[in-house]
Amino acid sequence: MYSAIVPGAVPGLDVGLSHDLVRDGGPPLYQQIAIAIRARILAGMLTPGVKLPSSRELAKRLEVHRRTVVAAYQLLERECLVHSGVGQGTFVGERPDRLDDETRGLFSWEAFLRRPEGPADLWRFVGREGTVPGAIRFTGATADPTLFPTDDFRGVLDDAFRLYGSGALEYGPTEGYAPLREWVAERLRNRGVRIDPDEVMIVSGSQQGLDLVARLLLHDGDTVMVEEPGYPNGFRVFQAAGARAVGVPLDDGGLRLDLLERVARREVPRLLYTMPIFQNPTGLSLADDRTGPLLDLCGRLGMPVVEDQFDADLFYEGPLPRSLKASDDRGLVLLLGSFSKILFPGLRLGWLVVPRPLLPALHELKQMTDFSSGLLAQCAMDLYCRRGLLDRHLERVRAVYGARLGVMLKALKDEFPPEARWTRPRGGLTLWVSLPAGLDALDLWAQARREGVDFTPGPVFFPSGGGNGHFRLSYIRETEERIQSGIARLGALVKANLVRGAAPSAAGPFI
Amino acid sequence: MYSAIVPGAVPGLDVGLSHDLVRDGGPPLYQQIAIAIRARILAGMLTPGVKLPSSRELAKRLEVHRRTVVAAYQLLERECLVHSGVGQGTFVGERPDRLDDETRGLFSWEAFLRRPEGPADLWRFVGREGTVPGAIRFTGATADPTLFPTDDFRGVLDDAFRLYGSGALEYGPTEGYAPLREWVAERLRNRGVRIDPDEVMIVSGSQQGLDLVARLLLHDGDTVMVEEPGYPNGFRVFQAAGARAVGVPLDDGGLRLDLLERVARREVPRLLYTMPIFQNPTGLSLADDRTGPLLDLCGRLGMPVVEDQFDADLFYEGPLPRSLKASDDRGLVLLLGSFSKILFPGLRLGWLVVPRPLLPALHELKQMTDFSSGLLAQCAMDLYCRRGLLDRHLERVRAVYGARLGVMLKALKDEFPPEARWTRPRGGLTLWVSLPAGLDALDLWAQARREGVDFTPGPVFFPSGGGNGHFRLSYIRETEERIQSGIARLGALVKANLVRGAAPSAAGPFI
Repeated sequence: MYSAIVPGAVPGLDVGLSHDLVRDGGPPLYQQIAIAIRARILAGMLTPGVKLPSSRELAKRLEVHRRTVVAAYQLLERECLVHSGVGQGTFVGERPDRLDDETRGLFSWEAFLRRPEGPADLWRFVGREGTVPGAIRFTGATADPTLFPTDDFRGVLDDAFRLYGSGALEYGPTEGYAPLREWVAERLRNRGVRIDPDEVMIVSGSQQGLDLVARLLLHDGDTVMVEEPGYPNGFRVFQAAGARAVGVPLDDGGLRLDLLERVARREVPRLLYTMPIFQNPTGLSLADDRTGPLLDLCGRLGMPVVEDQFDADLFYEGPLPRSLKASDDRGLVLLLGSFSKILFPGLRLGWLVVPRPLLPALHELKQMTDFSSGLLAQCAMDLYCRRGLLDRHLERVRAVYGARLGVMLKALKDEFPPEARWTRPRGGLTLWVSLPAGLDALDLWAQARREGVDFTPGPVFFPSGGGNGHFRLSYIRETEERIQSGIARLGALVKANLVRGAAPSAAGPFI
Repeated sequence: MYSAIVPGAVPGLDVGLSHDLVRDGGPPLYQQIAIAIRARILAGMLTPGVKLPSSRELAKRLEVHRRTVVAAYQLLERECLVHSGVGQGTFVGERPDRLDDETRGLFSWEAFLRRPEGPADLWRFVGREGTVPGAIRFTGATADPTLFPTDDFRGVLDDAFRLYGSGALEYGPTEGYAPLREWVAERLRNRGVRIDPDEVMIVSGSQQGLDLVARLLLHDGDTVMVEEPGYPNGFRVFQAAGARAVGVPLDDGGLRLDLLERVARREVPRLLYTMPIFQNPTGLSLADDRTGPLLDLCGRLGMPVVEDQFDADLFYEGPLPRSLKASDDRGLVLLLGSFSKILFPGLRLGWLVVPRPLLPALHELKQMTDFSSGLLAQCAMDLYCRRGLLDRHLERVRAVYGARLGVMLKALKDEFPPEARWTRPRGGLTLWVSLPAGLDALDLWAQARREGVDFTPGPVFFPSGGGNGHFRLSYIRETEERIQSGIARLGALVKANLVRGAAPSAAGPFI
């Protein structure tokens, strides 16, 4: 069928291609051209060594701009399907999936897959290094499992079976179990957020909520404003949706509005992603007098806000900071929350509040993603919350975590040199340390792990480089004794590095 | 700041725009241009009534093809941000999110959101009609909850707590709970699928598995081959990933390979999505002698196969048909399975087997989507399977469902006119009825619901129109008596419609 095509020029290529292109309302032409050529390569219609028409020539024949053909060829080259030499032209590469009945070769997924984009990811790098056995772990913003109310929860799970029987094992409603949605709405209303239960969706952890938001609202090529330092899994979700995360610095009052406005005017972002309460990684909260101006600014810029309230229930001192959503008169704010930090993550339950106009599209997307979140877990969680067990549990863990935070802050004061600085959060899971000038957090990280102390280096929290002078400390998973001991070891290391003074940085590829 | 911009011409528009465009490696230029203009409109830099440059003029200034600017303007028009009149030009519309401190208007999400694409969706339409109270339900391919082994499962859940304690409530591994992955791999190996446990990922139901596959493998503008009739939630997932679902007809031996090859040569698809065992909706299985040729064909076309084995455990007669994956020497087949149909869906557990080269990217995607599936549910499911409780349960439901299938087949034979035809599945959840020529399934559906019988009309299962002469019957959620009675009522309706002969079709907008 394709025997007429031999290595050399491909005179007829454009005819078939032109036929394949959807000129109006189709995907971008460069993608269509790449798809059509890729298909012909994979189907054996274009064989290895065949020279493709020059971009100028093909553009003319297809009546598209030359840049469109160049973009298509570049895409194919990234997929290793074609290769080009300066002044020589573009050639079909060795067919990656050359499969015939004789050889029964393996399918080449490497060529098939979209090539990973961007540079090596520090987050993955840090993750791959793994935990140091026995080390004092100031990593990981997750609750202390030794405090899990396992027996209480086993009780409500049993009751859920008794009360609902097989009903709790059927598909649940896409938007979540109604009583639990009501409980979430009621709790938020008590904190000044005026919403109805139908604006609440139960999701499989707030990570899924964030992923749904990104898929719902972002287009390829969009920009999202994020906090810098900020939450890396947020950056990754936005990047996976085809968007770019651009950081805005914080100060002690949280997000800097002057810089937000300046960057937003330049970047024309589609969304702002922020944690105004006990931000991860810094533990800082947005100052009360910034709430109104921030929302005004976002309204003027036409920029919706995704508010991630992942650990707002963990406050140890003073009143709970106010949610942005509580002041949202414009219906501009989406609000994400989680049961993973305050209770336990193994159930995969969180919630997402969206302005009412978004509900139908969100419903559709959630259904397609996994139909609904686990119903049995939702029924049990609802009983757990309504019986006051959650509040009892929170009282207990707040006391423990607050004391651990106090010990860490005191130890930092005692053990760290005066040139270092750190945040003093009133809630949350983590705090943020800034090293004396000239010291490098990745160096310190490697040294500390050798001495049995682990933390998360700053660059992980910077979407586009930087952060080497900082690191994050989580204070909730270790005992007070181990916190004291770990900070003492860290402090000694920082001082030793200070003494060495201008020791050259042995930092890796992320600097 | 933007006071210099007044209604009329926008001489400076191109300067800023040109600055914003990423020429190499960025998103498609038409998207970039639309994003940049949209941002200026939302930010108030371009005010309502302002005339945009003509596409020819702006193309010249930006040094892009005119078609690129036209595409950008079309995108903005779909978002209601600009409007155009023939021969008049393109104008900025009323600012949708005109928000100032005086009015505190609501944010206009309608303008912000991506417009829904494509025509009204019959699947949603059928869903919105809801269930008829008291009706005999031949809709819904979900297990009968009266057969759920609730007590047994309550027992294993209790044991999971006893054995693993708080460990079962922490974040689980992204790829799933290792013992459960081993159990799945072992079960598949017993059916001839040669895989290792590390190729199995536990997912939140096979719907999530399908969504992950689509996000992993599909690009905007791709084409996916699907069965026609086929699984509508499959179509929707592919469409949401930017792909087009193109149908290939079936016969009694399943997918027609001759048509698959013909359509694939024309459409150059990226994937084939198929249910070779007890296909939904028809209940048909791929003939044994088509397995090899199908895989050879897909290998030649460079087209991976997504095999959805959603209810392969529910076979009532004869040997279990062979999985495609069992013959996959090329590493070309991805395999999806679910616990939702054989046990209960409220736990949201399924599994996904992918060729090893895909594992890292899949792992990354799953982590970003929801970190991991619920660990407690996985621990309990593992105990349930390993103790032989699943096999005991399957034996029980197979007997019940098989008997219901028998009753339905006999009733169809007794009650339906000889001009009607239907499939005779050996397993699964549903069968497929073809009406006598001239009868319309949507008409019959409306009539049947008035008479207290519900089923799913054929067009739902056709990705691009058609299917009006068919419908799906699910036989697993009703008792034998109600099946008998429901089919008798349906048969009478079909006969009555036949007698009326050439009665005009009162079909709705989907015909």
